[in-house]
Amino acid sequence: MTEDQLVAAIRAIVEESSRQVPGPRPIALGIGDDAAAWQPSRSHLSVITTDALIDGVHFFGERMSARNIGYRSMAANMSDIAAMGARPVLATVALGVAPAAQEAWLLELYEGMQGVARGHGARIAGGDITRAPATMLSITVVGEVRRAHLRRRDAGRANDVVAVTGPLGASRAGLELLRNEGIQVAQDMRERALRAFETPQARVREGRWLAASVNVRAMMDCSDGLAADLGRLARASGCGALIEHVPVDDAAQAVAGAAGADARAYALNGGEDFELIVTIKPRAFAHLARRFEQRFGRTLLPVGVLEKNEGLRIREASGTRPLLAAGWDHLA
Amino acid sequence: MTEDQLVAAIRAIVEESSRQVPGPRPIALGIGDDAAAWQPSRSHLSVITTDALIDGVHFFGERMSARNIGYRSMAANMSDIAAMGARPVLATVALGVAPAAQEAWLLELYEGMQGVARGHGARIAGGDITRAPATMLSITVVGEVRRAHLRRRDAGRANDVVAVTGPLGASRAGLELLRNEGIQVAQDMRERALRAFETPQARVREGRWLAASVNVRAMMDCSDGLAADLGRLARASGCGALIEHVPVDDAAQAVAGAAGADARAYALNGGEDFELIVTIKPRAFAHLARRFEQRFGRTLLPVGVLEKNEGLRIREASGTRPLLAAGWDHLA
Repeated sequence: MTEDQLVAAIRAIVEESSRQVPGPRPIALGIGDDAAAWQPSRSHLSVITTDALIDGVHFFGERMSARNIGYRSMAANMSDIAAMGARPVLATVALGVAPAAQEAWLLELYEGMQGVARGHGARIAGGDITRAPATMLSITVVGEVRRAHLRRRDAGRANDVVAVTGPLGASRAGLELLRNEGIQVAQDMRERALRAFETPQARVREGRWLAASVNVRAMMDCSDGLAADLGRLARASGCGALIEHVPVDDAAQAVAGAAGADARAYALNGGEDFELIVTIKPRAFAHLARRFEQRFGRTLLPVGVLEKNEGLRIREASGTRPLLAAGWDHLA
Repeated sequence: MTEDQLVAAIRAIVEESSRQVPGPRPIALGIGDDAAAWQPSRSHLSVITTDALIDGVHFFGERMSARNIGYRSMAANMSDIAAMGARPVLATVALGVAPAAQEAWLLELYEGMQGVARGHGARIAGGDITRAPATMLSITVVGEVRRAHLRRRDAGRANDVVAVTGPLGASRAGLELLRNEGIQVAQDMRERALRAFETPQARVREGRWLAASVNVRAMMDCSDGLAADLGRLARASGCGALIEHVPVDDAAQAVAGAAGADARAYALNGGEDFELIVTIKPRAFAHLARRFEQRFGRTLLPVGVLEKNEGLRIREASGTRPLLAAGWDHLA
């Protein structure tokens, strides 16, 4: 297959299944020109995010299907859009193809990405394909958000309640299962952990709903682990944070138990759960959490509070202790 | 340096030198959050383009300065924006860092990218950094254009004059000089060829000016060689094309002569000259070319015509012959 033929095949995947998307922003010009074009919404800000994903660093080409690699990569970007309170509009994909890659594999990768984009009402509108020593994927997503709904990570204030949109650690548990086939764990927990790692759900609807509340001050997604990301949010907001409860996913508990590991460490340092971290005006939390549960059938889980003094602390049975914002350093 | 420290150093480069940019679109939120945000222009379409560049495929980390690698990579994206008739607004950068990469090298890379972005009135607004087996760079640029000025590659019509904004082949000549240090050529030609390869100029002003003319029908940039790119433009427009003159750059002529190569092949198949290819209503060409020269002090060079019958042909001394749209297949 030549490059032009591959682009045509990708275009078929992306455009075929996009016809049904009732997107409010029609794409004026999609794949096949020097650039894609769209009409931005008049009343909204545009937002943009980029993620690079490399075989062997962010995913495991030999142990995951191409569809799931695509799914996971696109979901990670959608999560960044969600964290701004925005709705995704379109994505571009830069793909470096390793010499051994098969065409069928590449097309399946696009199907995985396209499935997630479509699920959030967005379209893959362009990209670039090239040879590379290892398969690498760089996705950029553009979204839009009313100016008043834009949620930054530096807007938290001391005494805000810190909450997350779901329990943490399952993605890391799924990674452990892929790395170590010897771990014995109940089938439903195994599936839950693998699902969390391979096909994570970006909280786009939740993010937009939370951002529409004046009681939500700061928001970001939890992609590098609660410790690192809450540490970043607190620092950006000129605060510290005290973690009082670590909401550990059942699958993380089960896998960590079987692997002889610390489930709480999965949640604090594992990353890639793609739940949203929000800070909420203290008196508004209970009411907001009730409405969140009514709306989404899931619990908005309190994690702790922002504090005046900088630094990250965690409450243990024996009292509070400082917590290093270890998490995932992408360069370490 | 940790990831967070590196991001802070990059942010300093990008924001320090951006303060003077009188961009019409203020960035509401730059590097440091989950996504960057900006206010799109009310009357314009947004356009977006992405390029992936890999060490050893698109550039040579050992033979080029980090600054020039950055310069060249950003210029390639700006050229795609220029080819739509648009003005660049912002860029995001996804960077995969090879184990051997030095911090100073990375910061110099950003300085190179930032210089080009600033030169076109745009800003680097966000990105992602990660480890990778080889240095790789994926740049995405967003621009904006009045709807009536958007120039696609599929809008050419039979009998349109095909022209380019400058002579071709110098970039390929520069690549030959980097690959083969034994080539002997006059110093000014050597510098001209290396400059074309290392610090190519995106024709953003020219593209916006041409796109504002109702007599310019189709436009794209010449990044994969005249044969491949004009072949694509003609095919997209449902036409063929006849190349009557190949405008070969003096430096391409000099280097090809010294290397025992065909300078015309550099222009037809070399690529990465980043001149714009335009198709122009036949009766308007002479006047447009005159105004172009007055405005830019450079010649709008006629190359040939679009033809009714599909396929690419070239005029030789002995008559016309079919030309395979060889050019650069990024997967070959």
